[in-house]
Amino acid sequence: MSKRVTVNEAAAMLTAADRVLILIHQFPDGDTIGSGFALCHALQSLGKTARVACHDAIPEKYRYMVSAVPQPAFEPAFICAVDVADSKLLGESLQPYADTVDLCIDHHGSHREFERHLLLDASMGANAMIMLQVIEAMGAKIDQTIADCLYTGIATDTGCFKYSNTTPLTHRMAAQLMEAGAQAEPINRAMFDIKSRARMHLEKLALQAISFYDNDRCAVMCVTTDMIRESGAEENDMEGLSPLTRQIEGVWVGVMLREKTDGDYKVSVRTGAHADAAAICGLLGGGGHPRAAGCTLSGSVEEVIAQLRDAVHRAVPRITEVT
Amino acid sequence: MSKRVTVNEAAAMLTAADRVLILIHQFPDGDTIGSGFALCHALQSLGKTARVACHDAIPEKYRYMVSAVPQPAFEPAFICAVDVADSKLLGESLQPYADTVDLCIDHHGSHREFERHLLLDASMGANAMIMLQVIEAMGAKIDQTIADCLYTGIATDTGCFKYSNTTPLTHRMAAQLMEAGAQAEPINRAMFDIKSRARMHLEKLALQAISFYDNDRCAVMCVTTDMIRESGAEENDMEGLSPLTRQIEGVWVGVMLREKTDGDYKVSVRTGAHADAAAICGLLGGGGHPRAAGCTLSGSVEEVIAQLRDAVHRAVPRITEVT
Repeated sequence: MSKRVTVNEAAAMLTAADRVLILIHQFPDGDTIGSGFALCHALQSLGKTARVACHDAIPEKYRYMVSAVPQPAFEPAFICAVDVADSKLLGESLQPYADTVDLCIDHHGSHREFERHLLLDASMGANAMIMLQVIEAMGAKIDQTIADCLYTGIATDTGCFKYSNTTPLTHRMAAQLMEAGAQAEPINRAMFDIKSRARMHLEKLALQAISFYDNDRCAVMCVTTDMIRESGAEENDMEGLSPLTRQIEGVWVGVMLREKTDGDYKVSVRTGAHADAAAICGLLGGGGHPRAAGCTLSGSVEEVIAQLRDAVHRAVPRITEVT
Repeated sequence: MSKRVTVNEAAAMLTAADRVLILIHQFPDGDTIGSGFALCHALQSLGKTARVACHDAIPEKYRYMVSAVPQPAFEPAFICAVDVADSKLLGESLQPYADTVDLCIDHHGSHREFERHLLLDASMGANAMIMLQVIEAMGAKIDQTIADCLYTGIATDTGCFKYSNTTPLTHRMAAQLMEAGAQAEPINRAMFDIKSRARMHLEKLALQAISFYDNDRCAVMCVTTDMIRESGAEENDMEGLSPLTRQIEGVWVGVMLREKTDGDYKVSVRTGAHADAAAICGLLGGGGHPRAAGCTLSGSVEEVIAQLRDAVHRAVPRITEVT
């Protein structure tokens, strides 16, 4: 059982600490990277030794957050996880730290406790919003490096202020970070607008391969390893593909199945107000947020779709009603 | 020559007026509709008679702004245009009013004066931002109807806070409007997320028909009447198609040519930081904003592309440089 702490208590723990190792989640996204590197830079600006560890390499498009923050080698004396909802999500190479995390700062309602102290605020659309409060409470200056990192976290986790997790506070924090120097437009362009030609090609192929179920309220898009090969798409070309299904008029549950090289399928579920994505994925051993969740399934594509549809029917019984 | 007025002067003119006819631009978008109906509702809430006139019908997706605001018939005593950059943009049926506009409230840097009094603020990403200031200065309450209208204007004209015209003030106004009751998530979902199956189909066809010029820095997507017919797309399925070209990695100038039923082409130009869309379209008899502008061209598709490329080369000479 973790001890719950407040923003001020978490800030006090961090300002009392040194040689801080910051753990972010595997398959890192803008929010975990932004939260982690903002904290790392804030600690360094207060004269402390800190670095960020991640099971995976930081994708190219996020490197602007990394390049400004030195990553010294040292023996950790304090371990802080950020945006990590479950110790499994640290990934294999960081599992040795799973039972020794001093503090976790997270915003997932589905958080599974694994740390000594937990700062959890599921009302925050992005973990970076909690991190802004913590860094301010630590007395560190919100400089441009921190502003770029935290703006990125907020923008990416709220779909650029589009999703239901956006609140007036989200907008006020964005305003504050822009005034602190966050380069909102180039960040948003890099995060949301720019698509490689390979990605454009993959999108065309994937759009041609959407199946509809349950009165067209469930849309399943299957992205195969063949499609990825044909398009020339790389890992970072895959981002933002999963919401496409949910964007189709009348769809309650949008699903992207991504064939992995080991034959398993990575399942991304996106829902509107009529369905709970975390409930669907929870039935399949995964989890996430009410509107965006995920899991991994094994079997042929037909078997995977059957498992998935069964979970959808159990979690969203109304989806099969004819109106 | 128009007389320039301040927010307070414009508000004073409106509170002194009655029987106000509000003119919005043809092919109405979220910002002109939101600004117009917010002003109409504010005037009505102050006990005045007011209605909105538009050359075109209000598209279905924007109807939620219209339904809450009664539109009585009356002989106008004061005429106010909103978000109208040029009297030509009133459209044919509103041309009789072009020389009798008492006040225009606009945010286009390319504004061509036609009105008696002009409130112009090109620093505002959306006309709805100016309208919020005017309505507050009029002493009207920002209720949910006004909040929904103005939030829609701000969100649609800033690409949901993504474009370079988004400022800290834009975010603070969004926060204020959400607190006043703006239903941000369903609005954003309707404006940005939901695509009909016909639109998905059209997008697939259009993506297959992109040509690249000038070291792939210029991308031209031609949407023909045949494609529109094959996909079953309707007018409101066309929105948001033009930015697709600019989203391709390395593209400075993204162009959508839309074949009209009379054989002309409607040209939409979208640019990044390297090129000025208004300058390109200005050379072709059109206009707009630095990152988004438009014009109409006649001729075969090859002739239209030749005219366009010539304007691009004149407005953006660096586009042909090999680096």
